[in-house]
Amino acid sequence: MIIVMNPGASREEVNDVVARIRSLSLDAHLSEGEEHTIIGVVGVPLPPTLDEMMEVFPGVERVVRITSKFKLTSWDFHPQKTKIRVGATTIGGDAITVIAGPCSVESEEQTLTTAHAVLQAGATLFRGGAYKPRTSPYEFRGLGQRGLEILALAREETGLGIITEVMTPADVATVRPYTDIFQIGARNAQNYLLLEEVGKAGKPVMLKRGLSMLIEEWLLAAEYVMAQGNSEVILCERGIRTFEVQTRNTLDVSAVPVVQKLSHLPIFVDPSHAAGKRAYIEALALAGVAAGCDGLMIEVHPAPDHALSDGAQSLNFTEFAELMPKVKAVAEAVGRTLPVGDEAMVV
Amino acid sequence: MIIVMNPGASREEVNDVVARIRSLSLDAHLSEGEEHTIIGVVGVPLPPTLDEMMEVFPGVERVVRITSKFKLTSWDFHPQKTKIRVGATTIGGDAITVIAGPCSVESEEQTLTTAHAVLQAGATLFRGGAYKPRTSPYEFRGLGQRGLEILALAREETGLGIITEVMTPADVATVRPYTDIFQIGARNAQNYLLLEEVGKAGKPVMLKRGLSMLIEEWLLAAEYVMAQGNSEVILCERGIRTFEVQTRNTLDVSAVPVVQKLSHLPIFVDPSHAAGKRAYIEALALAGVAAGCDGLMIEVHPAPDHALSDGAQSLNFTEFAELMPKVKAVAEAVGRTLPVGDEAMVV
Amino acid sequence: MIIVMNPGASREEVNDVVARIRSLSLDAHLSEGEEHTIIGVVGVPLPPTLDEMMEVFPGVERVVRITSKFKLTSWDFHPQKTKIRVGATTIGGDAITVIAGPCSVESEEQTLTTAHAVLQAGATLFRGGAYKPRTSPYEFRGLGQRGLEILALAREETGLGIITEVMTPADVATVRPYTDIFQIGARNAQNYLLLEEVGKAGKPVMLKRGLSMLIEEWLLAAEYVMAQGNSEVILCERGIRTFEVQTRNTLDVSAVPVVQKLSHLPIFVDPSHAAGKRAYIEALALAGVAAGCDGLMIEVHPAPDHALSDGAQSLNFTEFAELMPKVKAVAEAVGRTLPVGDEAMVV
Amino acid sequence: MIIVMNPGASREEVNDVVARIRSLSLDAHLSEGEEHTIIGVVGVPLPPTLDEMMEVFPGVERVVRITSKFKLTSWDFHPQKTKIRVGATTIGGDAITVIAGPCSVESEEQTLTTAHAVLQAGATLFRGGAYKPRTSPYEFRGLGQRGLEILALAREETGLGIITEVMTPADVATVRPYTDIFQIGARNAQNYLLLEEVGKAGKPVMLKRGLSMLIEEWLLAAEYVMAQGNSEVILCERGIRTFEVQTRNTLDVSAVPVVQKLSHLPIFVDPSHAAGKRAYIEALALAGVAAGCDGLMIEVHPAPDHALSDGAQSLNFTEFAELMPKVKAVAEAVGRTLPVGDEAMVV
Repeated sequence: MIIVMNPGASREEVNDVVARIRSLSLDAHLSEGEEHTIIGVVGVPLPPTLDEMMEVFPGVERVVRITSKFKLTSWDFHPQKTKIRVGATTIGGDAITVIAGPCSVESEEQTLTTAHAVLQAGATLFRGGAYKPRTSPYEFRGLGQRGLEILALAREETGLGIITEVMTPADVATVRPYTDIFQIGARNAQNYLLLEEVGKAGKPVMLKRGLSMLIEEWLLAAEYVMAQGNSEVILCERGIRTFEVQTRNTLDVSAVPVVQKLSHLPIFVDPSHAAGKRAYIEALALAGVAAGCDGLMIEVHPAPDHALSDGAQSLNFTEFAELMPKVKAVAEAVGRTLPVGDEAMVV
Repeated sequence: MIIVMNPGASREEVNDVVARIRSLSLDAHLSEGEEHTIIGVVGVPLPPTLDEMMEVFPGVERVVRITSKFKLTSWDFHPQKTKIRVGATTIGGDAITVIAGPCSVESEEQTLTTAHAVLQAGATLFRGGAYKPRTSPYEFRGLGQRGLEILALAREETGLGIITEVMTPADVATVRPYTDIFQIGARNAQNYLLLEEVGKAGKPVMLKRGLSMLIEEWLLAAEYVMAQGNSEVILCERGIRTFEVQTRNTLDVSAVPVVQKLSHLPIFVDPSHAAGKRAYIEALALAGVAAGCDGLMIEVHPAPDHALSDGAQSLNFTEFAELMPKVKAVAEAVGRTLPVGDEAMVV
Repeated sequence: MIIVMNPGASREEVNDVVARIRSLSLDAHLSEGEEHTIIGVVGVPLPPTLDEMMEVFPGVERVVRITSKFKLTSWDFHPQKTKIRVGATTIGGDAITVIAGPCSVESEEQTLTTAHAVLQAGATLFRGGAYKPRTSPYEFRGLGQRGLEILALAREETGLGIITEVMTPADVATVRPYTDIFQIGARNAQNYLLLEEVGKAGKPVMLKRGLSMLIEEWLLAAEYVMAQGNSEVILCERGIRTFEVQTRNTLDVSAVPVVQKLSHLPIFVDPSHAAGKRAYIEALALAGVAAGCDGLMIEVHPAPDHALSDGAQSLNFTEFAELMPKVKAVAEAVGRTLPVGDEAMVV
Repeated sequence: MIIVMNPGASREEVNDVVARIRSLSLDAHLSEGEEHTIIGVVGVPLPPTLDEMMEVFPGVERVVRITSKFKLTSWDFHPQKTKIRVGATTIGGDAITVIAGPCSVESEEQTLTTAHAVLQAGATLFRGGAYKPRTSPYEFRGLGQRGLEILALAREETGLGIITEVMTPADVATVRPYTDIFQIGARNAQNYLLLEEVGKAGKPVMLKRGLSMLIEEWLLAAEYVMAQGNSEVILCERGIRTFEVQTRNTLDVSAVPVVQKLSHLPIFVDPSHAAGKRAYIEALALAGVAAGCDGLMIEVHPAPDHALSDGAQSLNFTEFAELMPKVKAVAEAVGRTLPVGDEAMVV
C-alpha cells in the first residue's frame, strides 16, 4: 500500500502516519519527492480496512492499495481454471453450459413440458424459481415448497441438473435437497449472511452480479462463499444499471474477459435479465459466447404471454430451439463446443 | 394502463390483446389514431405485473402504466405526513431529528463517551452497529450480541433512543429488545423477507436507499414493510452509485423533495455515507436540511483515525458539536427547528 | 401523445389543457377513468417540444409521447437497410467492414507502415486522427493539415478509404478532400452545428455515441445530419460511462440490436475505446460481431508503447493480424462474411 | 507517478520500463516489495499522457498518478479564491450571485418584462439564449442575431449584466459585444476549440458541467480556457446523468464542496436544468446555497406554459420573487449574503 502525503504535510504528520503503521506491526518506507512525501507500507497480511484507516490521518492526500483485496478468487490462489461437475455436465471446461427454464415454477405441467423442451434443444441444466424476489409486495412470489417438489420431479423425469434461487439463510437447508446449484440473485449479491450459509452447504453456488456492483465487489462476494470452504462458485453477469432505458439493464459484456483475467471462477451470461425484452436475447447470448463466457442462463416458458413473471424476457420453445444452433456456431468459432447433436435440434 | 400497438399491428393482434385483458375481468377501450391503435385498460385493482404480461403480445409497442404501483406509501392512502414518536423525539414534525453515533460499536467506552458527546451537542437518537455488512469477509464485522448490550447501556445512561442495523430475518427477534428503530442497510434494501420480518416486529424501521435503487423501487420496498401493518417507516437517502469518484457515492439531494411529493413518509439524509470523506459532510448535511429533509444521520467517533470501520467518514466530537449550530441555522432559515439549546453547544 | 391528469385535476384545468392543444391546431380526445382523466392528442406533425409544453400545465401528472421523435433515421422513413459505398467497400451489407489504424497520425512512416499492415490483415478502411480532442490542454493534439496530407498519401499507396475526425464546423471544408468518411467523436456527438455542417458536405459520416447519450438522443443527432439531405450516416458504439472502473468505458453491446430495431442505419462497434485496455479488445470485437454489428473500428499502432495517444488500447500489427481470422470465424457463424483471404493472414 | 509491476514481472520487463522513463529525461526509483516491484517516476513536468504510455508496457500492472493533471485551476497556482467583477456584481465573494431569465429569448416583450421582474426580485445578472442547442433538429433553436439585440436592449433598460450561450468558435466574435459572460453549455463542455476561442475573447466564461463529466475532466476543461490567459472562469453544476428518472438529471450537490477543495474558481448551481421540473427547483436552489455555492442560475419566464423551450423547468415571476427571500435566509444561515432589499420583494 502506498500513502501519498499532501504537498504541505508537516514532518509531524508524516511521523504520525508512520507510527500508526508500525503500531500495526507493519513496515513503512519513506520516499521524499519534490512535491509529495510517499510512504510505502509493507507487511503481510495488510488489514483489509487499512486504506480507510489511513485516509483519515491529517496530511494524507491519497491511499493507494497495490495488492487486491480478494484472495481465494484470484489466480494467485488457484492457478487452474475452476471446473465444476454437476451430474453429467462440466462447467468451466471447453463446452459452453446452457441453463434454461422458466423464471418461476408455476405448475407441474408448465415445468415438466419446459424441462423436456429445453433438454431436447440441448440445455444441460434446468432453472426455475420456487422463491421469487419481486419489487412489489403485490406480485406473484413463487410456489415455495411445492415449487421445489416440482423441480425434483423435473430432475427425475429429465435427468437435468437443477438450479434454483435461495433468498434467506433459513431456507438454505430446505432448498438443499432439491437443488444441484444454489442461485444467489442480484438483489442478494451482498447479503453476506446468505453467502456464508450457502458457502457451508456443500453444493455449487451461482452468484449473480448486483445491479450496481463493481467487479471487485462481486469477487469479494464470491470470497465470502469461498471463505467457508466452498470453492465451487460460478459468477453470472446479468446486466448492470445505467442511464439507458431501451433495455431493462445494460449487459456489461466486458465483465466476461475482466473476470477471466482476475479470477479462476467460471463466468456466465444471462441475456434474459440483461435485455428484459425477448427481441434482444439472441444478440446478447451470442455476444456473451463470443466474448468467452463459460455458459448462458436463459429464460424459457411454454407461453410467455401467460407467464406469471418475466414473460417479456422469456423465449418460447421454438425460439429457444432455434437459438441453440446459433450458440453452437459461435461457440465453435471461438474454439469452444456446445454438446448439441443434430437430433437435438428437432422440435 | 395504456397499451400502444405498433403502427402495423393487425386487427387480430389487437383482438388478442383485448381478449386477454377481458379474461382478467378488466375493461378495454379502443382508440384508433392515425398511426397507432391505443388500448386503455380500466379496472381495479390492476394486477401488478400486467405491464410485463401485455408487453409480450405480438403487435404491442409499449405499455404505459398510469397509476403508480405503490399504495400504502402514497399520499392517497395517508393524506397526513407520517409522524413517528421515539421516546421524547417526534420524527416528521417541524423539528429536524439528528441521529449520531459511531459506525460500529467497538467497546463500552467508545460507545458511552460518544453517546454522551452527541447528546451534549443536540442529537436525539443514537446509532451504532452491532452487526456490520462488510464488502470483504476479512473486515471487522461487529461485536454482535455484546454490541447490542452496550447499546442498551448507552440508552440507559443517556436516555437517547437507539437505532441499529439488522441484517437477516433470524436476527430480528434478537435485536428487537435493544433497539428503538430497526435500520435496514443499503445492501439489504431489497431483501424482501427481511423487510417483512421487521414489518411484523412492531417498531419503527429506517430504510436506507439501495445504491442503484430508483425512488419508485425504494417506495415499493417501504410498501413491503407497511403491508405487514407497520406504518412507521423512515426513508434515508445515503447516496447513489454514479460515475463520479471524488465522493464515495453521489448524494441525490433531489430525492428529498421527490419523496415528499410522492409519499407521506419522513425522509432523512445520511451525509457520511454519501460523502465518504469527512471534509464534505458539513456541506451535504446542510444541503439536505435546506432541501427539506426531516432528519440527518451522521457518523461520530471519539478518534476517527482509530475507528475499526468508516473512520474516513466520521466526525470527531468537536467537529460534530461545531456542525450542530449550523444545522440549526439552516433549519430555521427553511422554517424548521432544531432543539439545541445554547448550553448544548458547550463541549 | 397522451396527457394524464392528476386524480384531483379540476374540470377547469382539463379545459385549459384542451384549449391549449386546440390552439395549436391539434385534436384532443377526452377519456375519463375512475382515477385519471386522460387526454389523447392527435395531429400531424406534433410539435417536438409539445411534451415539455404540456407538462407544465396545472393538473397534468404526466405526458407520454407515443410516436418517436426521430423520423429520417427510422425504418418508417427508409424501409431498406442503408448501404454505403466507400471505394470498393460496401458498409451495411453482408460483409463486416473493419476500419483500422492509429489513434493519431504521428509521422509518415508510422502511418504508412500501419496502413500496409492493416490492409494486409484484411481491413478495408483506414483511420487516423489529424485533429485530436484531448481531455487536457497539455496533451498531443494532432498534426493538423500535415496529418491530413499523410493520410492522403496512405490512401494513394494502399487504396484504403480514409476516415478521420473533424472537430469544428470551420474545419469541414479543409478536411473534406482528404477523407472518405467524416468521423464525429463522442465528445462532439451533440455539437449540432458541426453535425449540420458535415450533413452538407456530401460525404458519409460516422457518428460515435456520446459517453452518456441515450440511444434515442443518438438517433436524433443522426437526424441532424440527415436533415441536411445526407443519408449516409454510420453509428458507432464505443462504450458509455458507468460506475465500473475495470474498463475505460462500458461497451453497451445491446445498442447493436436496439439500433437495428429502431433504425436502418449501419451500426459499428469500437472495442478499443470501450475497453481502454489492449487485453480486452479481442473479446469485445468478437462480441460486437456476434451481436450483429456491421463493422468494427480498431486502433492499431506499430509500437503501442511509443504511441503519442491511446497506446494502452492499441493493438500491434501481429495482434491485429491474429484477431482478423477470429473476427471472420464469428462473422461466418452469424451469417455474415469478412473478405479476408488466407493469404491476407500472412504477416 | 508510481508504476506497479505484476507479481510475475521479469527483470527485463522492469528494465524496459526504467529505460523508457529515462529516455524521457525523467528519474526512476525502484522499490522491491515482497510481491510487487514498484517504480517511482520523478521529474517536472511529467508528460500528461505518461500514464497511458507506461500502462502498455509488458509486466506493468497499474500506473498511479500522484500529481493532479490540472494546474491553473488549482489552489497551488492561485491561492486566493477567484473573484470576477461584472458591472456592479462581484462573483466569488461573500454575496451569492443570482442569474435569472428565460431559457430562450423569444421576443422583445417576453425578454424585457422578465428582465424587469428578475431585477425587481433581486437577480443581478440576466440570462437568455439566442442560440439554443436542442436534442432534436425539429425544435425551436433561438432567434440568433435578433436575440442578441434584444439582450442588449434588456441590459440597457435594466442595467443587468448579460450571460448568453455561444455554441461554436465562429460565433464568439458575433456574441462578444452583446454579452458580459460567455456561457458554454453542458453539451459543449468538451468542445475544446470553443473553449480556447472563448479563452481568447477577454470576457468571463461560465462552464457548465457535461452530463457525464468527472469533476477532474471539468477542471481540465476550465484549464483549456485558462491556458489562453483568461482566468475568469465560473463553473456551474447543472445535474449529471444517472439511472434515476424522477428528475431530468441528478444534481450532484457534492460537486460544490469538492470543487471548492480542488479549485479557486467560483462554483454555481443551476437547479432548473438539474430538476427539469418546476416543483423541485426551490429545494435544489436552497440545497446548493447551503452546500456553499457562489451563485445560482435559474430559469424564469412570464408564462412557462407558453415557453418555446424548457417551460417545465421555469419559474414564473411570482414563484421567483417568492424564492429569493428563502435564498437570502439560507445564504445568511451559512454566513453568506444576498443583496436583496425588502423593497425588492414587492412584485
